[in-house]
Amino acid sequence: MLDKPRILNRQIISETRIFRAEAIDLVFSNGIHMQYERLVANRGGAVLIVPLTDDETVLLIREYAAGSECYDLGLPKARIEEGEDILEAANREIIEEIGFGSHQLAQLTDLSLAPGYMNHRTHAVLVRDLYPYRLAGDEPEPIEVIPWPLNALDQLIQRDLQ
Amino acid sequence: MLDKPRILNRQIISETRIFRAEAIDLVFSNGIHMQYERLVANRGGAVLIVPLTDDETVLLIREYAAGSECYDLGLPKARIEEGEDILEAANREIIEEIGFGSHQLAQLTDLSLAPGYMNHRTHAVLVRDLYPYRLAGDEPEPIEVIPWPLNALDQLIQRDLQ
Repeated sequence: MLDKPRILNRQIISETRIFRAEAIDLVFSNGIHMQYERLVANRGGAVLIVPLTDDETVLLIREYAAGSECYDLGLPKARIEEGEDILEAANREIIEEIGFGSHQLAQLTDLSLAPGYMNHRTHAVLVRDLYPYRLAGDEPEPIEVIPWPLNALDQLIQRDLQ
Repeated sequence: MLDKPRILNRQIISETRIFRAEAIDLVFSNGIHMQYERLVANRGGAVLIVPLTDDETVLLIREYAAGSECYDLGLPKARIEEGEDILEAANREIIEEIGFGSHQLAQLTDLSLAPGYMNHRTHAVLVRDLYPYRLAGDEPEPIEVIPWPLNALDQLIQRDLQ
């Protein structure tokens, strides 16, 4: 096992409404110096929600993704807002995005998308025991909910590969 | 199916050595205007490589990730450089990172990490029929190679959940 590099200096080099980039100067245990850039997460982090119905069906959503410029199928995601904990954020988001609240929320694991370039952690939350409840969110248009039975997940993957 | 929003304007709002951020003004089909920010990929894109040995073992690597500040276990990844195609980039990277070249490279699928916030596409490449061959890369220290049998993948997932 190698000793971790030591961080000698860090500096915010760019900040927009959504993104904050930092340069970090490192020295590795063999004495080599490097400068890396990375994106720095907002305070609270984010949640990724797996809404599961009583008959083992996942509620996916289809919404416009500005990066890919497509309507993409996925799980509901949200930033954790000031003063919220992880499960509160998950419940708020499904109420706003899919029109259900949950009586049974459980953290599954933490995910990182690109650990080389971001320090963001996304908390995955399984939500069950759903009840109909809707509040308005900040979405520009209604979000389509696509129920997908767990036992047909392989077809979801095949669909992506086409 | 909703009509896609129309992009009215796009503007680079930040550019560092690694990251380029863009603001886009959109009008949705219901007339609502929004401004989103997204990261814009470099020209070539990136490859994610699955090196598979003749005995069905995946060669994972452990290297320092500046985002998480940890030595993370993962698959080799690389940017596609000027003038390279996808399979050339994959072969170069395994020669530099794990000390093997491949006689059998095949594109598996394209992945996007965060389609809402990035337009990056990562090309997944399966490489087989490996032969020992090493050239120096730009890594600050040697990369540890961790062979992981395909039939023990569930243990890899369990390990992450601990």
